[in-house]
Amino acid sequence: MPKLWNKGKDDKEVEDFTVGDDHFLDQELLQYDLIASSAHAKALRKAKLISEEELKKLLTGLRQIGEAAENGQFTILKEDEDCHTAIENFLTKRFGDAGKKIHTGRSRNDQALTAIRLYEKDSLLKAADATLNLANELITFSKRHSTTIMPGYTHMRQAMPSSFGLWAEAFVEILINEMTTIKSAYKRINSNPLGSAASYGTDLPIDREYTSKLLGFSNVPNPLAAANSRGKDEAMLISVMHQIMLSLSRMATDLMLFSTEEFGYVQLPEELCTGSSMMPQKKNPDVLELTRAKTAVVQGHYVTVSSIVKDLPSGYNRDLQLTKRPVMESFDITLSSLAIMKRIVKELKVNNKRCLSACSPGLWATEEADKLVKGGMPFRQAYKEVASRLDKLKRPAKPIVPKLKSRRLIELLGEERRLLVGEQEKLQGKLRF
Amino acid sequence: MPKLWNKGKDDKEVEDFTVGDDHFLDQELLQYDLIASSAHAKALRKAKLISEEELKKLLTGLRQIGEAAENGQFTILKEDEDCHTAIENFLTKRFGDAGKKIHTGRSRNDQALTAIRLYEKDSLLKAADATLNLANELITFSKRHSTTIMPGYTHMRQAMPSSFGLWAEAFVEILINEMTTIKSAYKRINSNPLGSAASYGTDLPIDREYTSKLLGFSNVPNPLAAANSRGKDEAMLISVMHQIMLSLSRMATDLMLFSTEEFGYVQLPEELCTGSSMMPQKKNPDVLELTRAKTAVVQGHYVTVSSIVKDLPSGYNRDLQLTKRPVMESFDITLSSLAIMKRIVKELKVNNKRCLSACSPGLWATEEADKLVKGGMPFRQAYKEVASRLDKLKRPAKPIVPKLKSRRLIELLGEERRLLVGEQEKLQGKLRF
Amino acid sequence: MPKLWNKGKDDKEVEDFTVGDDHFLDQELLQYDLIASSAHAKALRKAKLISEEELKKLLTGLRQIGEAAENGQFTILKEDEDCHTAIENFLTKRFGDAGKKIHTGRSRNDQALTAIRLYEKDSLLKAADATLNLANELITFSKRHSTTIMPGYTHMRQAMPSSFGLWAEAFVEILINEMTTIKSAYKRINSNPLGSAASYGTDLPIDREYTSKLLGFSNVPNPLAAANSRGKDEAMLISVMHQIMLSLSRMATDLMLFSTEEFGYVQLPEELCTGSSMMPQKKNPDVLELTRAKTAVVQGHYVTVSSIVKDLPSGYNRDLQLTKRPVMESFDITLSSLAIMKRIVKELKVNNKRCLSACSPGLWATEEADKLVKGGMPFRQAYKEVASRLDKLKRPAKPIVPKLKSRRLIELLGEERRLLVGEQEKLQGKLRF
Amino acid sequence: MPKLWNKGKDDKEVEDFTVGDDHFLDQELLQYDLIASSAHAKALRKAKLISEEELKKLLTGLRQIGEAAENGQFTILKEDEDCHTAIENFLTKRFGDAGKKIHTGRSRNDQALTAIRLYEKDSLLKAADATLNLANELITFSKRHSTTIMPGYTHMRQAMPSSFGLWAEAFVEILINEMTTIKSAYKRINSNPLGSAASYGTDLPIDREYTSKLLGFSNVPNPLAAANSRGKDEAMLISVMHQIMLSLSRMATDLMLFSTEEFGYVQLPEELCTGSSMMPQKKNPDVLELTRAKTAVVQGHYVTVSSIVKDLPSGYNRDLQLTKRPVMESFDITLSSLAIMKRIVKELKVNNKRCLSACSPGLWATEEADKLVKGGMPFRQAYKEVASRLDKLKRPAKPIVPKLKSRRLIELLGEERRLLVGEQEKLQGKLRF
Repeated sequence: MPKLWNKGKDDKEVEDFTVGDDHFLDQELLQYDLIASSAHAKALRKAKLISEEELKKLLTGLRQIGEAAENGQFTILKEDEDCHTAIENFLTKRFGDAGKKIHTGRSRNDQALTAIRLYEKDSLLKAADATLNLANELITFSKRHSTTIMPGYTHMRQAMPSSFGLWAEAFVEILINEMTTIKSAYKRINSNPLGSAASYGTDLPIDREYTSKLLGFSNVPNPLAAANSRGKDEAMLISVMHQIMLSLSRMATDLMLFSTEEFGYVQLPEELCTGSSMMPQKKNPDVLELTRAKTAVVQGHYVTVSSIVKDLPSGYNRDLQLTKRPVMESFDITLSSLAIMKRIVKELKVNNKRCLSACSPGLWATEEADKLVKGGMPFRQAYKEVASRLDKLKRPAKPIVPKLKSRRLIELLGEERRLLVGEQEKLQGKLRF
Repeated sequence: MPKLWNKGKDDKEVEDFTVGDDHFLDQELLQYDLIASSAHAKALRKAKLISEEELKKLLTGLRQIGEAAENGQFTILKEDEDCHTAIENFLTKRFGDAGKKIHTGRSRNDQALTAIRLYEKDSLLKAADATLNLANELITFSKRHSTTIMPGYTHMRQAMPSSFGLWAEAFVEILINEMTTIKSAYKRINSNPLGSAASYGTDLPIDREYTSKLLGFSNVPNPLAAANSRGKDEAMLISVMHQIMLSLSRMATDLMLFSTEEFGYVQLPEELCTGSSMMPQKKNPDVLELTRAKTAVVQGHYVTVSSIVKDLPSGYNRDLQLTKRPVMESFDITLSSLAIMKRIVKELKVNNKRCLSACSPGLWATEEADKLVKGGMPFRQAYKEVASRLDKLKRPAKPIVPKLKSRRLIELLGEERRLLVGEQEKLQGKLRF
Repeated sequence: MPKLWNKGKDDKEVEDFTVGDDHFLDQELLQYDLIASSAHAKALRKAKLISEEELKKLLTGLRQIGEAAENGQFTILKEDEDCHTAIENFLTKRFGDAGKKIHTGRSRNDQALTAIRLYEKDSLLKAADATLNLANELITFSKRHSTTIMPGYTHMRQAMPSSFGLWAEAFVEILINEMTTIKSAYKRINSNPLGSAASYGTDLPIDREYTSKLLGFSNVPNPLAAANSRGKDEAMLISVMHQIMLSLSRMATDLMLFSTEEFGYVQLPEELCTGSSMMPQKKNPDVLELTRAKTAVVQGHYVTVSSIVKDLPSGYNRDLQLTKRPVMESFDITLSSLAIMKRIVKELKVNNKRCLSACSPGLWATEEADKLVKGGMPFRQAYKEVASRLDKLKRPAKPIVPKLKSRRLIELLGEERRLLVGEQEKLQGKLRF
Repeated sequence: MPKLWNKGKDDKEVEDFTVGDDHFLDQELLQYDLIASSAHAKALRKAKLISEEELKKLLTGLRQIGEAAENGQFTILKEDEDCHTAIENFLTKRFGDAGKKIHTGRSRNDQALTAIRLYEKDSLLKAADATLNLANELITFSKRHSTTIMPGYTHMRQAMPSSFGLWAEAFVEILINEMTTIKSAYKRINSNPLGSAASYGTDLPIDREYTSKLLGFSNVPNPLAAANSRGKDEAMLISVMHQIMLSLSRMATDLMLFSTEEFGYVQLPEELCTGSSMMPQKKNPDVLELTRAKTAVVQGHYVTVSSIVKDLPSGYNRDLQLTKRPVMESFDITLSSLAIMKRIVKELKVNNKRCLSACSPGLWATEEADKLVKGGMPFRQAYKEVASRLDKLKRPAKPIVPKLKSRRLIELLGEERRLLVGEQEKLQGKLRF
């Protein structure tokens, strides 16, 4: 297949080195490129650079590619280099001159970036959705275990009395906080790269406001700003995914600890554990371990992308191609981790008795000092007093259960859900042909 | 000096290993801790845990520490461990029992975190301010050079005609985008850790809504959520600084290239260059090189902090202490880099003639193809046509100057400035005694 | 296909989450696993745990898998989980009880690790080979251009007179230095994991010295040391690849700069450049840009792997599975980058005239000061003297060409080559059936 | 104080931005610079560029600086920029022309690099020493606990029977492996930068073989290779420190887990734990937590340094200055962590009874299957058989204790110690005046 820039013969080694696995990734980007290309075709028509008939052909062709792809019949090959080339080649083969006109006034730089931004907008909303789903599951869990007293840990040592309700609610609040970051990321990338061409715009009268409206972007940026956002915005998006993964990794760490034979506070759902090839008795928390490890994969991607961007001169540089896989894989990891963690929370069994019996009297040392404080003794003195008779501490018969703020959190979740549904509808309207 | 938890003798090796350079960092955090401690003292009074007289003593003592520190007379020593201990020791030495009561109902965990969050809120607004200042300088530069034609580069090769106005404006828009991220980060950390105590709250009737109001926080979080935000929020803040630095690093890369003997488009201000110890003729762009390198320092800090957080079980862990320097240093780097880059932009001299004479005819190859397109030739054909007679291309006598969107950007800058001034006033009101 | 640990029904979501793309990677590991499995089968025979006939069956089966794989007829599916399971399943299906015995006294932990270590040994020697090949090409280039005077740069500014010979030779010496690191890495991983079983050895009388000899390992480690080396050794290997890539990235940076229109010192081979989809005139150094970007991919992998390892408790943890792709991809990247850089160096055209004419008189300022020094003036004074009359400097008619140390480097290269050939032969003897 | 390159007035903002905390770091580098400077002075004399008398003055002055520094009376100020400037200024002030001659034929680039390489050689040997010390302590511990049966873990779940002896021995072997890497790193950096000047050598007849001999370097590199090794070698050294820290971090992770109330296998030495400001009962493993966190600091430094190096054009660039702190801090962290971990191992108390009673019968499931295997049943069948009657497993009355390889490891440690002592003596002989 001819490459868009091809002037001579191909070179297998160079092709392998430069194309890499882009053609796989582009299979997922294809649908977004088709939408973006149809908007571009409409803008060409508006600028009178193609005829009404040519527009119809192009739109038909783009729709056909979409349908073929859905049926697994439009596969991007390494020789195609990328989905952008594959599309132009298809259109040209099918419609001749109309196909040769689709690339008027655009470059692969802005074409690729537009497809990626649409993909990212879609993926961000999916991440928001999965985040809220997990938060909902945790609220249910939290209410179910609001009175399950357990040791609260600091330094991985028993510290103060806590409850499984408090533990779960903490993660609900943390996940709600992610929504702030997700929304700001969405705003940041909601800027239309189409028309920025090779990085410096085009002298052709392409109406960028018009394509922005067609594609649902809220801003028409300086063309070099659009080009320079590539990679940097990807680093930002990966950091957003990384934030979510860091919370999941800590949740996984807690659950792995709580489900050891030695702690025994919870039992992981059997179908989410795996066994050993050698040891018949094993039930391993592989899903949790991999959640933790995948957090490191996302971190590595952040480093890759930000290192790529750091010293680039302005304008498109080929280095930026290698920011595509990191961002796509980070989204995949985060979406699947959120979903699987939701299943774990849903089916997690808590051993209430074990939780209580594990509580050592020392957990109430601070409460004991506080009692002296209430009687008028300065805290630092009360602290020393209790420290001198730690062996006399006892677990209270009826330990006080920490207060929760479930209602407020449920309200917040509802609010976030409403906002999200609105954005989802708006975006889906733009991603349809 | 006695440590707050001290039960026996000190151990120099352990002290060196655990305290590190915290006492230096805490010198900067001290003022925020004093404000937070005064709010805590007021809450103790409200809860009737101290008398009115004791409150007065504590507030007086805190104010005295603040004044002494301003005059360089309150130095935190390594033996003090941190500013939190130094404050309690001072108050106890000076007021006896009142001092021994200041730590009632709180832990160093929430005390430290509150001081850090106040510091971070203040620093974020400073970063916003410096970002807008640089954007303003760039707008001025952009208008001054709106017609300075220069080669636009992709792949570090001449690509399309551009202008220094377009270049500068791109960075203005990028910097305005940072404001979105800064504002969302501010919202994320605007949550009151005070009262979360060791990570699981306190049984004493501390009114957390009250301290939130006193300190200007907009949310009272689940105590474990507050504890677990430590480190993770720092990673998020460093990523925000890193985003800014990535833009500055690319700007620095452009300017280093443009100011080589070989390009010669700009001349850096002499007072911002340094010389060589050996070569009399050298004028080196050290400030730009260090801006680029400091971006890598911030990146390293991101990795450190996110690696620290990744596998921690819930609740405070001592590892988190080592997230303090990275976040503080990242703020310092970003603030000073923004300031020095503003000076560079302000005094940058552009060599208009050199910019124009460097423009090779190939820059207009696309425009040439577009001419054929306007005449009806399909683009892909026009592309090949022009490719076949590249040697006949000429630089146009009057090259078209790229359009700018200065007015819109100036409006946006004004709007952001108004919002920022409002937040600054609100915060400063809370940070005063 | 049944998993080795399977006790019940499969779960698609869990399979996707846990297996990931391991089955692709394992296609490459398969051949090494077959060799390791045949050594294990021999050890089972030596321990009398299988009969001579069973051994024959197993060896035949393993050889058949190898042949089938070579012809693309043994594909590891996601349902197989990994190559280890696929092998056992094949042998069991084909030979019944003999197949069910292959996993006696071993775990997938040591099986996988052994295959990986063999793969890594093989890959390290390939990397050594490609490193020496590039160094050889550079020596040839260096000799060809030993008198091509060019500006030597510091701070990306003209500093001192240099030559293309000196430049190329610097990279030769740097690449020779990599051999030291490669050899030490090889020594580090040359330790036999087979027999460490699940991490704690086996009570069965498997002779680990025997399998070490069969497989060419030089050490029989403590079993937990073997298990704990997983991931950590991979981080070490990636850092070795990263060192090589850092040199290639700097070489690429130099060549991209030297081949701009503005510098014009070298011309990149046309077949290693790519064009633009939009701009007919473009000839982009994509291969160099991607070499630079791939260095960041390897860096990201280092971060991922070392973050995974950092907080793991001793013994195998599932997290370690995710260290496989990073190390394999880092080898792939390094091998292909070394090979393509060799082509670039081979076909690089130097524009001698342009190199000389670019030399500004300032390059000889230090030499001028040195002349005064030779006349007795203290250097610091001479420096100031020359600094005061920089405008009077001239390029010497016959600039002195920097001396090279080619002969010594050629000797070193020959020595390294001899050592490498020896190791290659030794290893290949062990990797054959 | 005049800077070496100073032509005009100072600029406080630029000084703060460019010098940073270099003057603190340089206090530690000073002694190495003095040695290197004395070698350079001798080479100037050999080249007849200074007189015998001038040489004497310079050597006297350098020795005086050294003595003053030892007594805390030679402090490098921010205005000095670095130790190199401070030295030249001192010599010039004291000896006039002789001082002005010290910088003949060298640049700060090679001067700084030489001092750093000497510091690094010295620090590497210290790291080797501390590594062997910890390994020795672990061997002692291992022998003391060779029969202490405990659960061996995989996936943080009880897997196979193990012993504390096996556990400790694993880390001994891992630490011995580090010696391979340390020695290769030492060889890599044992190359003399002095004489490479600004990156391109000098036309003055400085005898680089002579200074190599004086300073104990074993190679005289191409000058640009020397310059380009800066940063890259630092990344390599940090990766060596990181390898050591990764092992310490895993050891710390094990010990934190084993010392929880829930596991209770070991008791940490009281003087290495710290308390809580609020909770009287706490005994926290801060030293272990910080060891874990400091591993992340070293990782961050690796990222910083390798990102700095990645895209630099050949020759010195100011970015490289920021590689100094990361490498020095990584050495400091590793040395102090090795030392403190040795203390922990030395004073660690093992609770033998608890270790045994924690062993669940499932640990012997594989041994049970192996029994069936010995009776002729294929392993996969035995595995299923045992899996079906896990509840009938019992802990054996006399569990088999894993075999250790202490003797071999003690031999290896002795051998490494002998090699190290030899290198230490050689180096110390060169670092004395």
